[in-house]
Amino acid sequence: MDLTPFEADARLARDSELLTRIGLCELRLMRDARWPWLVLVPQRTDVFEMFDLTPLDQTMLTFEINLVADALKRATGATKINVGALGNIVRQLHVHVIARSEGDPNWPGPVWGFGMAEAWDNTDKNAFTAKLLEHLNS
Amino acid sequence: MDLTPFEADARLARDSELLTRIGLCELRLMRDARWPWLVLVPQRTDVFEMFDLTPLDQTMLTFEINLVADALKRATGATKINVGALGNIVRQLHVHVIARSEGDPNWPGPVWGFGMAEAWDNTDKNAFTAKLLEHLNS
Repeated sequence: MDLTPFEADARLARDSELLTRIGLCELRLMRDARWPWLVLVPQRTDVFEMFDLTPLDQTMLTFEINLVADALKRATGATKINVGALGNIVRQLHVHVIARSEGDPNWPGPVWGFGMAEAWDNTDKNAFTAKLLEHLNS
Repeated sequence: MDLTPFEADARLARDSELLTRIGLCELRLMRDARWPWLVLVPQRTDVFEMFDLTPLDQTMLTFEINLVADALKRATGATKINVGALGNIVRQLHVHVIARSEGDPNWPGPVWGFGMAEAWDNTDKNAFTAKLLEHLNS
């Protein structure tokens, strides 16, 4: 059994902050205020594709993606939730869950690779995070 | 019980062609030769978000995404499989499964919204499809 503590990839750790852990995944918030943008990182080392996970972990990941996506939709009232596992840059498996609304930056195009990140205002970030966690628990 | 035959959204039907059906989903090939680009469409009407599916359908969809992603990786030898459910334009739930390789168009950025689709050469398309279906069954 590998007892090394799980660590998110260095770029993921730089670009996002840990909000909480839910079963399989770390739930992280991207340091980019342009969209309510979450990332789920399964706490498994050396896993690059979803199909590299065990069947149980695949089911857990699906459950957690849908739990978080549903809470994010209710917390934001977004038009559409975008879910994506790309990994072209950061290879460690991670799943983006993003609240999109008509007229947001690059709508209806994707968020990845668009423009430059904008820092969160701390008050806004704390309010968003509190609301999200409340919806995650209800 | 709704006995209306399932029909993919008109834009999905125009932009992709049906390859086969696997349990829950239609497996479709995008009419864009720039990337090996598949789309899974759960045969359910009025479903927009993954979390709108029943828990059993969510599990089926996960199984089918991973089955197709694994086969696509083996069939193409791609660097990374990109999986995404966006739906900002076509609201009917559909999941993209795309084989990405270093140096392909817009690498390492996303495929969505990038440039213009290029038609498949029929011989190439038939060869790719045959290889994919062979890997799906092995």
